[in-house]
Amino acid sequence: MRFPEPIERLMQYFRMLPGVGPKTATRYALSLLRRSDAELSAFGTAIVGLHQGIFLCGTCFNFSSKNPCEICRDMERDHTMLCVVAKPQDLHAIESTGDYRGLYHVLHGTLSPLEGITPDQLKISHLVERIKNANPKIIEVILGLNPDMEGETTSMYLRKLLQDSIKKITRLARGLPTGGDLEYADELTLSAALQGRKEV
Amino acid sequence: MRFPEPIERLMQYFRMLPGVGPKTATRYALSLLRRSDAELSAFGTAIVGLHQGIFLCGTCFNFSSKNPCEICRDMERDHTMLCVVAKPQDLHAIESTGDYRGLYHVLHGTLSPLEGITPDQLKISHLVERIKNANPKIIEVILGLNPDMEGETTSMYLRKLLQDSIKKITRLARGLPTGGDLEYADELTLSAALQGRKEV
Repeated sequence: MRFPEPIERLMQYFRMLPGVGPKTATRYALSLLRRSDAELSAFGTAIVGLHQGIFLCGTCFNFSSKNPCEICRDMERDHTMLCVVAKPQDLHAIESTGDYRGLYHVLHGTLSPLEGITPDQLKISHLVERIKNANPKIIEVILGLNPDMEGETTSMYLRKLLQDSIKKITRLARGLPTGGDLEYADELTLSAALQGRKEV
Repeated sequence: MRFPEPIERLMQYFRMLPGVGPKTATRYALSLLRRSDAELSAFGTAIVGLHQGIFLCGTCFNFSSKNPCEICRDMERDHTMLCVVAKPQDLHAIESTGDYRGLYHVLHGTLSPLEGITPDQLKISHLVERIKNANPKIIEVILGLNPDMEGETTSMYLRKLLQDSIKKITRLARGLPTGGDLEYADELTLSAALQGRKEV
């Protein structure tokens, strides 16, 4: 048995969203039935017009409504530091710490031989070009990539690519997450925490 | 730091959906950025036009594109049995078993003194009226409500209300769910399974 056509159709669209299966799609579609026409109209219009007014910054490739974006134009930031991230969400996560005042470069993905993602599909040539032409010169590149296979592969690739032009190439620290429990930490995390131990 | 305005706005709308918090809303909104204009247009239009073409069946109050709905018009179904459910989703769940060939009545909620949901906010007076005028007469009413506080309250209320006009009022069986583990069953489920035990 099927729901009426407009509900079934909407369910199909909800399934485009990441992690949404048939049950969740049904729940979402039916929950919207209780909303007013005005709310549905506003929601739908926001989806239809999503692309309007959003660009990629031509310098760092973060989403922005301006080009260059606010971060790239901010002269109070440290233009000699560049943090390379995979996704705009990662940039937001780092920004929300309030501890980083340098610039960013968003790759829009990570290298993955398994999924056939090669350097030319990422903003890597733009990164090389950007570093070459940077004024002031970039002194440090932070590789802010995930501590997983794809992130490691990408970090290694970038280190080789950049090591002749950049003196200081760093990556984010590995160790126990704050609030984590040593007893339940996996071996790799614990190894990293041991190797990276600090004097107190 | 905020995302560009069109993304932030869409995130707010995604948060209208049940169980969607800030992180999920962000993930949904950003995932749509990668979709084509045509896909976004179709998705948004499906939301805007959701209410068009969907009615509540005037007899059973299930969602339908026709009135009366397909189930109520189906003369091959048993019109002397009526299963009362809280939501259209529950009706769909029972239909998908293929084991029930009677009619339904959707209450659109359950009684909840805590949330201030009283009988007049549900399709209860319609149910009484429907049973009174039914031709053929309804012989059995199955209370297909959730085994929780609100469901129990509603079942008890309906039993009292209907016991003079309907001879056979039943509710769904309680017991161990198929594939469940006796060891991990909660006390109430296990008590119900014991009380409802059957000879083999």
